Amino acid sequence: MKQPLNFSACLRKYLVVLRFKNEFRVSKKSTDSRARTGQIKTARGVIETPIFMPVGTLGTVKALSPEELTACGARIILGNTYHLYLRPGCEVIDLFGGLHRFMHWDGPILTDSGGFQVFSLAKLSKITETGYTFQSHVDGSRHTLTPEKSIEVQLSLDSDIMMCLDQCIQYPASREEAEAALELTTRWAERCFDFWKGNRRPQNNLFGIVQGGMFPDLRERSAQQLTALDFPGFAIGGLSVGEPIDLMREMADFTLPLLPDGKPTYVMGVGTPEDLVELVALGADMFDCVMPTRNARNGQLFTASGTLNIANARFRTDTGPIEADCTCYTCRHYSRAYLRHLYKTRELLAYRLNTLHNIHYYLNLMAAIRSAIDHDAFADFRRAFYSRRNISIGAGHP
Amino acid sequence: MKQPLNFSACLRKYLVVLRFKNEFRVSKKSTDSRARTGQIKTARGVIETPIFMPVGTLGTVKALSPEELTACGARIILGNTYHLYLRPGCEVIDLFGGLHRFMHWDGPILTDSGGFQVFSLAKLSKITETGYTFQSHVDGSRHTLTPEKSIEVQLSLDSDIMMCLDQCIQYPASREEAEAALELTTRWAERCFDFWKGNRRPQNNLFGIVQGGMFPDLRERSAQQLTALDFPGFAIGGLSVGEPIDLMREMADFTLPLLPDGKPTYVMGVGTPEDLVELVALGADMFDCVMPTRNARNGQLFTASGTLNIANARFRTDTGPIEADCTCYTCRHYSRAYLRHLYKTRELLAYRLNTLHNIHYYLNLMAAIRSAIDHDAFADFRRAFYSRRNISIGAGHP
Repeated sequence: MKQPLNFSACLRKYLVVLRFKNEFRVSKKSTDSRARTGQIKTARGVIETPIFMPVGTLGTVKALSPEELTACGARIILGNTYHLYLRPGCEVIDLFGGLHRFMHWDGPILTDSGGFQVFSLAKLSKITETGYTFQSHVDGSRHTLTPEKSIEVQLSLDSDIMMCLDQCIQYPASREEAEAALELTTRWAERCFDFWKGNRRPQNNLFGIVQGGMFPDLRERSAQQLTALDFPGFAIGGLSVGEPIDLMREMADFTLPLLPDGKPTYVMGVGTPEDLVELVALGADMFDCVMPTRNARNGQLFTASGTLNIANARFRTDTGPIEADCTCYTCRHYSRAYLRHLYKTRELLAYRLNTLHNIHYYLNLMAAIRSAIDHDAFADFRRAFYSRRNISIGAGHP
Repeated sequence: MKQPLNFSACLRKYLVVLRFKNEFRVSKKSTDSRARTGQIKTARGVIETPIFMPVGTLGTVKALSPEELTACGARIILGNTYHLYLRPGCEVIDLFGGLHRFMHWDGPILTDSGGFQVFSLAKLSKITETGYTFQSHVDGSRHTLTPEKSIEVQLSLDSDIMMCLDQCIQYPASREEAEAALELTTRWAERCFDFWKGNRRPQNNLFGIVQGGMFPDLRERSAQQLTALDFPGFAIGGLSVGEPIDLMREMADFTLPLLPDGKPTYVMGVGTPEDLVELVALGADMFDCVMPTRNARNGQLFTASGTLNIANARFRTDTGPIEADCTCYTCRHYSRAYLRHLYKTRELLAYRLNTLHNIHYYLNLMAAIRSAIDHDAFADFRRAFYSRRNISIGAGHP
């Protein structure tokens, strides 16, 4: 806030943005799987893929500072449109020219459409051809979220990667439900696309979302309809909504090859470390999940050999770090005994140190995956990953 | 935890500690008040006085990392013996050779005796000539805290400045209660002194605590009895326990000159920014208080012109920092609008950013006080301080 404005620096930055062209390039393809590395160029920085995006629901990745996120290797974070639209509201964010300056994060931000949270959090939500109507879970106020409104809010956030408003369905859902939802999702995607084309600035990308429930032919139809529009990237929605893990991976396996090779692919809301490894093998480029942050706040810490619960009594006198070879701030300076003490006494520092480790674990895993793909050694990496975790290849949650 | 042990560096550090001599030197005395600057040399660093010590009750200054404390200007922090004795317990801290390595803070630590918390927090506490017996407020377990035990626990924490076990009394208290408590406090101080002499390492200092309630002659007697023992420093206890602010300052005004000029003086549990300025004027060197940290968690932020409540609706669209000329991390990067948003949504980052600002405010105030004294301009400083706060000199809480 306080630094004096450097006018020429501002102008230079503005010109860079103006002549900027968003771009995705595949760097390397694995020879024994569909795993690939690539680069998404955005106006606010280059994102090396495959990438995990920490979730910053309300304009903060819970318990971490932006500097800590950067130190953990975060290059893009996620904001939730539904939450930010309700609090603090666009009229506040507009005063800062977007979410970046409001939250002191200079890098790219991906925002969801708000649809999933209306579906899962809001009260009395109704869906029509026009969009969603709902009552805020915070204060009961009434709102309407149309495809155009969703893009308008995301443009107000100045999101680097915006998502189309889609219709989410529960699992299990009937074929009729899934079909109707995918058709509505397509019609909304067209409205989002048109509104985006008419109102975007160069830095704002928009991704389409493939729906279709757990029905391969519906997924195929959705992918065909969506890819008819020239979105800069595509996501697979409606996964990780309660279905068995094998079914989730099966649907991703079927759907990912239906998306254009030259565009980044994003599997929304996924997942465990195993999910990330498996979905990378199937060709996915981008992921987000609350698991590393939420589990951290519940004392669940990720390590190469599995998850540990820091509240466990056996850590009371454990002077070692969470993970011996981890280079995160938490592991460099604090013991399991101290982290257990902080967690048991509900000290605020506990949530931060735990979150920092888990985010570092996830981003470090993605960096190792990228390096393995670049050296065409992803199959070896995958074997070593499972052998350290002491579970068989392709297996489920830790 | 993880850095490889550098044997020669360890040995060098050990030798420094071995030949180390704790020392207090007065640098400069104000000509128009009893304000003074000085240096307390400890094995873990030099402390410029007057100093404020952030409170780290359970081995963490709530919400802050040690690096953030250092960046705010903290040079010594406080740990609470009662709390640390109960959780995690000495057998855990002993594994780390003290509190410093356990909590990743290399600087000096002052610990209280545990008496005040037994008095204010523990269940069924009883006092006899031997010491306190009490039940833990955490799990109801029974414990005894004698003067010797208090020092033993503080030695286990490897505290740089330990405090004698004293008897705290309520306000108001009768003369008889105050007199009995001061006499017991003196007998316990002698036992603490003897135990300390027999068991200390060179780095462990011990301060005596003057009691005597709100009775000047009892304060005088307590000071005489305590200063008969060669403690490295002296504290005034039993203030800021509910008495009117003028009475607190009156007692400090009366008691401080009774303490030896060549030893640091510490007014325990004090106070507001105004209290600090006034007590420095009376010759006090050291302070601690939960006010900056606790108030931060309640959204109360200190500024030169008074306290602001960040939850206030008028900050909703305020794009400026908490304080325009503040150089803390929070003010350099975040607006009041963002801080209000974080606070209203109970985001963990709120507590940290608020705490960081308040601790910076307190430590910056002390630095400004020291600089004013060094330039023999403390009276000017004091006038300017009150004029920015828009209240008259020597007035009470903001």
